[in-house]
Amino acid sequence: LKVGKVYLVGAGPGDPGLITVKGLACLKQADVVVYDRLVDESILNDVRPEAEKIYVGKADRLHILEQDSINQLLLEKARKGKVVVRLKGGDPFVLGRGGEEAGILTRNGIPFEVVPGVTSASAVPAYAGIPVTHRGVASSFAVITGHKASDRGEPRISWDKLATGADTLVILMGMRNLA
Amino acid sequence: LKVGKVYLVGAGPGDPGLITVKGLACLKQADVVVYDRLVDESILNDVRPEAEKIYVGKADRLHILEQDSINQLLLEKARKGKVVVRLKGGDPFVLGRGGEEAGILTRNGIPFEVVPGVTSASAVPAYAGIPVTHRGVASSFAVITGHKASDRGEPRISWDKLATGADTLVILMGMRNLA
Repeated sequence: LKVGKVYLVGAGPGDPGLITVKGLACLKQADVVVYDRLVDESILNDVRPEAEKIYVGKADRLHILEQDSINQLLLEKARKGKVVVRLKGGDPFVLGRGGEEAGILTRNGIPFEVVPGVTSASAVPAYAGIPVTHRGVASSFAVITGHKASDRGEPRISWDKLATGADTLVILMGMRNLA
Repeated sequence: LKVGKVYLVGAGPGDPGLITVKGLACLKQADVVVYDRLVDESILNDVRPEAEKIYVGKADRLHILEQDSINQLLLEKARKGKVVVRLKGGDPFVLGRGGEEAGILTRNGIPFEVVPGVTSASAVPAYAGIPVTHRGVASSFAVITGHKASDRGEPRISWDKLATGADTLVILMGMRNLA
């Protein structure tokens, strides 16, 4: 029985030019692409026409059941010997739940590789003209989920310490809880 | 008088495959490439043979005078109408002093563009199998310079608050001060 391989690939923050050379090479050789909501779907233009493209996009409320289904899908395709690209916005390991997928693949003996991506945490401020660090102004930054209220069993966020401890704060997925 | 353009490009954390598609396209069209110490110089293989490659690499102690010289170099080449790529390890705006270069270019009316890169802050832990965030374990991370002791006039780092405020801490450029 041939076992495939899963690439956990960061698509970058939206601009299709900000995927990595390695990430694009993975996409071009994929048998299956499992992708989230993307800022710009033209990033999928280089996927082979015969490859299977599976949209598992979700809004900013990610339910555990959905993640379980994605995990099962990755296992199932890899066990059929497929080269699977799990394409995620930004970086798979920066609030992208790539660690959970890596854990499932490890526990099931499926070969995988992580291809880091440009994270929106620094790239979106950069495109807005804001360096997250700047000499004399900011020598540290913190990236925090703003998604917390809808999750359970998560470690408490120490807003008081973060607010005064890190020089720049970047809050991802926070729009729903902004008020 | 024709004015050139400066691209502040993140080379990524070392693996030449982790430069972005857009960053590589900039390198291929550059007249001048101004680069720091790179983990893997093969990333320069795609630079045109007739392009000028200028090494301004420095170790982890960056002196202000050196940065001033780099700034002047960028201005001088751009004023000659050149397409200049300022190639930096990781991301130009994550402890990369890209903000200072962007400021100089702005004040001198030189067109420029920032091309974000994969930061070593998340990619190096990823390659070591460590997601900087993980559901139920870490919902925030902070990136901090470990370079502080040798700088002057910088904001104080609140280690006590950072240590207990952010779930994961990533310290860059800290080897010299490790003891």
